[in-house]
Order: sequence, then structure tokens, then C-alpha cells
Amino acid sequence: MSVDQYKAPDWSVSQWFNTDTPISLDQLRGKVVVLHAFQMLCPGCVSHGLPQAQRLYEYFPKDDVAVIGLHTVFEHHEAMTPVSLKAFIHEYRLTFPIAVDMASDDADTPVTMSRYQMRGTPSLILIDREGILCANYFGRPQDLQIGAEVSALVHASTVRGASPVNVGSIEGCTDDGCAV
Amino acid sequence: MSVDQYKAPDWSVSQWFNTDTPISLDQLRGKVVVLHAFQMLCPGCVSHGLPQAQRLYEYFPKDDVAVIGLHTVFEHHEAMTPVSLKAFIHEYRLTFPIAVDMASDDADTPVTMSRYQMRGTPSLILIDREGILCANYFGRPQDLQIGAEVSALVHASTVRGASPVNVGSIEGCTDDGCAV
Amino acid sequence: MSVDQYKAPDWSVSQWFNTDTPISLDQLRGKVVVLHAFQMLCPGCVSHGLPQAQRLYEYFPKDDVAVIGLHTVFEHHEAMTPVSLKAFIHEYRLTFPIAVDMASDDADTPVTMSRYQMRGTPSLILIDREGILCANYFGRPQDLQIGAEVSALVHASTVRGASPVNVGSIEGCTDDGCAV
Amino acid sequence: MSVDQYKAPDWSVSQWFNTDTPISLDQLRGKVVVLHAFQMLCPGCVSHGLPQAQRLYEYFPKDDVAVIGLHTVFEHHEAMTPVSLKAFIHEYRLTFPIAVDMASDDADTPVTMSRYQMRGTPSLILIDREGILCANYFGRPQDLQIGAEVSALVHASTVRGASPVNVGSIEGCTDDGCAV
Repeated sequence: MSVDQYKAPDWSVSQWFNTDTPISLDQLRGKVVVLHAFQMLCPGCVSHGLPQAQRLYEYFPKDDVAVIGLHTVFEHHEAMTPVSLKAFIHEYRLTFPIAVDMASDDADTPVTMSRYQMRGTPSLILIDREGILCANYFGRPQDLQIGAEVSALVHASTVRGASPVNVGSIEGCTDDGCAV
Repeated sequence: MSVDQYKAPDWSVSQWFNTDTPISLDQLRGKVVVLHAFQMLCPGCVSHGLPQAQRLYEYFPKDDVAVIGLHTVFEHHEAMTPVSLKAFIHEYRLTFPIAVDMASDDADTPVTMSRYQMRGTPSLILIDREGILCANYFGRPQDLQIGAEVSALVHASTVRGASPVNVGSIEGCTDDGCAV
Repeated sequence: MSVDQYKAPDWSVSQWFNTDTPISLDQLRGKVVVLHAFQMLCPGCVSHGLPQAQRLYEYFPKDDVAVIGLHTVFEHHEAMTPVSLKAFIHEYRLTFPIAVDMASDDADTPVTMSRYQMRGTPSLILIDREGILCANYFGRPQDLQIGAEVSALVHASTVRGASPVNVGSIEGCTDDGCAV
Repeated sequence: MSVDQYKAPDWSVSQWFNTDTPISLDQLRGKVVVLHAFQMLCPGCVSHGLPQAQRLYEYFPKDDVAVIGLHTVFEHHEAMTPVSLKAFIHEYRLTFPIAVDMASDDADTPVTMSRYQMRGTPSLILIDREGILCANYFGRPQDLQIGAEVSALVHASTVRGASPVNVGSIEGCTDDGCAV
């Protein structure tokens, strides 16, 4: 069974930024959810993924679309602590809610990142109003495509041709992203 | 009555490129129509508008969305002839149907450009499946917004918040576009 | 004998823009000369070569460096006439002197382009204060390198490691340029 | 007496990366020195300053030009520790020697940053072969200018028109940089 057929699993979060109260996926039922997974030291996240997530957050009405950032640290854990992330969020003017993915007891990859079978950062996950996982992108999907797919979910709960996309073959960290 | 409430008028065309037969707006009824007006020597069209139109043409299914280019020459007429346009289309690898707007007998602004009350180039016009003019942009609307609005018309025949947008105050030709 | 060892040949010009009087290479003896060959419908020239030439013209003192544009049409001759070039120069805000390369009686490639053994457009040619051809680039040399090499010629009449560079293997017109 | 007339003061460093042994300014006498001051969470440094420094390091011969990075943390000290910097240097593929500016006992601004009267990050400082401070830029000087000025120092120990340049009026952190 492919990840696309799963009901989107809830996230497991150790800390939140840009929100006064924790946010659960259940609370967002009825809205389209854009989940953007990143690492603050992943070049492709800084140059492409996070600015795109911020644009999504600013463009779509909050009643229709919830944009959630997820800090999925799977390498250099000591270098990307919540203290550093807090300053990063401030300096890069990120205003959407951002969660710190729960560290795993027995793996480098954090809990939510594993649940969603993400291949690395940046990853962009689209969840429809009913909570079904519709797309799971790794790398650099373009604004035109993401804008169109989120809008399709807002208006019709379908995404034409959405499917996991791996932009290039990423090994380690490249300009496109960082692979697990 | 604002241009947004008009039924989209048909275009008046003197010559076509990238299509064997002329295309009328009536023929496209049932599809969302993206009409991109440009001049081949308008810097904002070359750097922004035309690449965006090409991306729209390549991303959306042809059954749902028709992308039409319109060469609306309102200045330097002698410099932007169909002969030059033909080479331009070839060198810039444009593959969507492109029409040459019919010159006016008594004005610099061509016929279709006047009918649509375009303010200059690049202009991007969105028409829904029923032929209603939904948006008339001048300048540089972003990919995220246009992707979302075209997708909204594909899935729901509505555009949330679409309205004429003038990016900056353009006089003459700037990087953003060329004003009439 | 490689082109780099040649004394730079004079150009053969049918028409000038942005100068009241024709300019010969001999007149420029004592100055470093940057000769930028382009075609107005060459995408790599429009997006990269011409803006770089304009930056060179604006940055370096006129007493030290002469920047000369050369319209070397070797394809679509009917589409890139002086009339179209004049409007192009105006719309793209080019202010340095621009020459139209003399058409050849028996070849598509114009006279000066052939003399300099240019491989296509954009080409950037560097000539030292004594009139020696020091570099002949085809494609997209970067600003850092060109700024450094022109400055070296201004201050020391030598270019470290300058040599013809072909950026990628260009066939026909690509984003990098148009090959003969 | 303006900073431009000073002999460049030595730096005070608590830790080095990308070099086995500490590097003093005296050791570099006879070479042109490019000192790039940055903070790992300064957006203008990440998008502009550091890539430019890396290009300078890769273009100019090591015998002529020494490129030195200086991590001048003056805000969010707890977020930009050497541990985080080490991962940052790895992920961003920076290969030139990078020093951590010595923290001040009584000020947020580190020691070397104060000595050089830097206004913020990114700052780019040019020192000639004799150790004279020739330019002190804050913000985003362009590649063409920096390439030309470093080349001028390599070939003639003079910089035409070099002087402190403040790109825009920067307050706090903007895309251009972070002001003290």
C-alpha cells in the first residue's frame, strides 16, 4: 500500500514556535493542510522550501489552508537545537506555526518524519480537508504546481496527478535538499 | 460596469503562430482560458510573462486549460513585425498558440488590447469555462497566485479575490512591463 | 597560430547606435576594449551578456575601458534588422556604443564575427591597451571573472589564465547562447 | 582619521575552521587579503556574501589572494555557537579558512568586528599586499566590482574609487544584511 493511500498520521511534536497552543492534525480537519518539513541548515530549505511555505501561508485564506512547518532534524542534531531554530525563525521572518519533530529514542530520523516516510528535506506534504495524504514531495516542486494543487484541494478535494516527486537524485546535502 | 463583469470579448487576430488553424474564444468554451498579452521587445514580458505562460501551458492539461499568447504591439510597430515575432518565438522556444493582435486603423493600440482595456504588457487575463472574464492582470503576478487561480477556475469556476493588479506604477517600459 | 596571438582586427560596421560618430579600434588604442557580440533575439545575450556589458560600461572609467556592442546577426537576418535593433536598444536601456556588424556577401556570418573567429553569441572579447586580443569568450563568463580580467588589463596589461571558454556545449540557441 | 587610512589591525580569533593552523594577518603580508565577516543566521550573508566569498576563493590564485571568513556574532550568541557553525560550514560547502571572532568581555560586538569598525554583516574588507585596509563594505557589493577591485590590488596595489559602501539603510536583519 503506497503512502499516498494512507490517512495522514498525526505529528509528534516536542516544541512549537509561532503559536500559543499546540496544533493537532485533528484540529485542522476541514482545512487543507500544507506540511513543510525542513532543517534550518539545509540549503535547499533556506533558499527554496521555506520561502515557498511562507508564500503559501500569506496567499491562501487561513480558513481554507493551514501551513505548518516541521523541523525534522536527522543530522547535526547538536547544531540545530530549538535555541538556534528560534533565532533562525526570527532572522528569516517566518510567521507560520513551526513544530519541532519529536526526536526518536533509537534513530537519527525523528518520529513524524519516519511516520510520513519522508526521504529528506525539504519535503512538502499536502493533506486534504478529510485528512487524506494527497502528495509527498521531496526537493523543489515549483510554485505554479503547488499553488495549483493546493487550490485544487481547496476547491475540489482532488489533486490532478499529484505524486511523490524526487527532484534529481539527491545524496547528502545539495542545493536541492538533504537526503536521509 | 467594471471590466471584470464583462463577458470576455473575442479577439481580433491578423495572424497565428504555433497552430494550423485560427482559434476563436467560442471554440474554447468549456475550457479555462489564459490569455497572455505581450510585446516581443517588452523586457518584463521576456523575463517574466512569457516564461510564466509557457509554464502554465506545460503544467495544466490541455483539456482543461487553453493558453493563448497575444502579440499586442502598441509601440515600435515597425520593429515588432510578424517576421521578427516568428524568429522570436523560435529562439525563445515558445510552443503555445500565439496570435498577432489586429492593428487598429486609427490608434496605436491594437483592437483586442483595447477591447480588453489592457493597461500594457505583460497582461494576463483569466476567462472561466463559461467565457466570463475573471481577472485582468498587468505586470508580474506571481506563479503561486496564478497557478492557484487557474486551478480554482478548473475545479470550481471561481477565483478567490481575483482583481486587476498593477504591479508598481509602470511608466514606459520598466523591468516590470510596458505601459500604454 | 591561435586567435589569442593575433593582433585584434578592426571591425567592419554598417551602422552605429549610441554614438554620434563611428568608432574604430585604432581610436581606442591606449584603452582596454571590451567587445560584446550579441544578437537581439539570442536569449543568453538578453538575459546575461547584454546586462553584463552594461554593468562593465557603468563600472569602469571611460578613460580606461571602452565597451563596444556588436550586433553579429548570423541567423534570422530578416528578423533582426537595424530598425528592430534600434527599438530593442531603447527598450532594454542599453547606453554603450553598439555597432551593426557588416553583412557578408557570401556567408550568413557577418564580416567582423568571422574575423574574430567567434563561435556564436554572446561572445565577449577583451583587447588590451596595445590592441592585442587577450580573451575570446563564448557563452556566460561570470561577472567576478570578467571584472577581474578587465581590471588586470587596466592595471597591468595581463590577464591571468584568460583563454577562450565555451560554457557548456551549445548547439543552436540555448539559455547559454546561440552557436554558429 | 578615517578607517581607510588605518593599517589593517590583526584579528582576534577563538577558533578556526578549514585550516590546520591559525592564520595571522602578518603571515599573509605580500598577498591581497579578502576578509569576509558574516553571521550564519544572517540571510544576506547566506544568500549573497558567503557565496561571493567562495567564488573569490575559487577564482583567484592562492599565491595572490587569501580569502578569510570571520564569524562575527553580535546577536543571538547562544544560537550561533561553534558547534552550529561547524555544521553550517559543512552543509553550505564552504572551503576557505573561517575564523570565529573573539567574543568581547563587555560588549555584544566581538573584538575584531569592533577593531575594523564594521557596521554589520555581511562586511567585506580588502587589504593590500602591504597590509593597508583599502575598502570596508557593508551589504551587497556586486561581483563585478569586487572582482575588479581585488584584481586591481593583485596587479597594482590600488583600488580605484574603493570606499565604504552601505547598501541601502539596513536596520536589524534584512535581505541585504544585519546591522549592529
